[in-house]
Amino acid sequence: MLRFYYTPNTCALASHIALEHAGALYEAVKIDFRKEEQKQPAYLVINPKARVPALVTERGALTETPAILAYIGQTFPAARLAPLDDPFAFAEAQAFNSYLCSTVHVAHSHRMRGYRWADEPASHADMQRVAPRSVAEGFRLIEEGMLKGPWVLGEAYSICDPYLFTLAQWLEADGVDTAKLPRVIDHRRRMSELPAVKKALAAEAR
Amino acid sequence: MLRFYYTPNTCALASHIALEHAGALYEAVKIDFRKEEQKQPAYLVINPKARVPALVTERGALTETPAILAYIGQTFPAARLAPLDDPFAFAEAQAFNSYLCSTVHVAHSHRMRGYRWADEPASHADMQRVAPRSVAEGFRLIEEGMLKGPWVLGEAYSICDPYLFTLAQWLEADGVDTAKLPRVIDHRRRMSELPAVKKALAAEAR
Repeated sequence: MLRFYYTPNTCALASHIALEHAGALYEAVKIDFRKEEQKQPAYLVINPKARVPALVTERGALTETPAILAYIGQTFPAARLAPLDDPFAFAEAQAFNSYLCSTVHVAHSHRMRGYRWADEPASHADMQRVAPRSVAEGFRLIEEGMLKGPWVLGEAYSICDPYLFTLAQWLEADGVDTAKLPRVIDHRRRMSELPAVKKALAAEAR
Repeated sequence: MLRFYYTPNTCALASHIALEHAGALYEAVKIDFRKEEQKQPAYLVINPKARVPALVTERGALTETPAILAYIGQTFPAARLAPLDDPFAFAEAQAFNSYLCSTVHVAHSHRMRGYRWADEPASHADMQRVAPRSVAEGFRLIEEGMLKGPWVLGEAYSICDPYLFTLAQWLEADGVDTAKLPRVIDHRRRMSELPAVKKALAAEAR
């Protein structure tokens, strides 16, 4: 059985939703950041990066949201979560998720985790002031075209949708004007009504 | 024919090398950052993110290094650049490349492009001071285990190798103590001797 390590209110939610959508049998294990459980030796064996998510399979542990999402898409083909037989469409899905991971999520992280890249409190405050602008710029490109509609890749729901939904959870706290993102907000609303999304959110709220 | 947009001394080198390794027919087009060609309307049609690389196929443009590398691996299967028939191994490759993209490259970017995340010169100077430490930390995990050896994924060369080689180009300029990274440096040396790598580097130097 799969074992899925997550922390509530992190990007792990994307993989959590995908596992639900795939109908996967898995055990969910909460890692408590307040207790710094991600830095304990028992977890560092699973993920030396001290981050979530991690998905432990019978072959070993996988990390990084884009990789875990693609793995779920490939190993649960009946759930039709990725365009597996079309390398171009699959690459488009990977490109979308890579953009969320390396640009949008990174912009967001500067609001709370500036210590990763700078030492001075004044630098962290500067990053917090800029984050609303940089996150908004990341979402502007999604609003204007990367989100094809009704789902990210167009007519077919995919592994891109729970990832966009997850990062869109943070828009208000990031200080982004959501009135300028009607398509992203409509996507978020429709996602929130899916049973798999409700189930993952309820599990993480426990 | 594929058209490949790159800028010398950027992460585009990884895809450039992979195209060479794949034996792909492609036209390479240089985007000059000094002339801000990445922000010109003609290029923004190809990549609204104003970044490199971009790979234009007969189906449209692809962006994001992890996605382009996976696409090259999947569409040139004879080159054996990715474990295509093994979802777990493929996810391991994607996880490695996602880590380079979202953690190691991002740490590096704080040395030169701090304006993305902060406004004040003092913040940018702070980021420049921290970059050697954060890039070194990213490479420490690679040195200690993510690089299995002799190639990233073990015995088989893959799409992970040119990406690691590309980011390892920047170690000295990033102020990282390479004496602590003997396996990464040995990998970089062996990579530099491959004909595909020499050809891509020579093309970018023109």
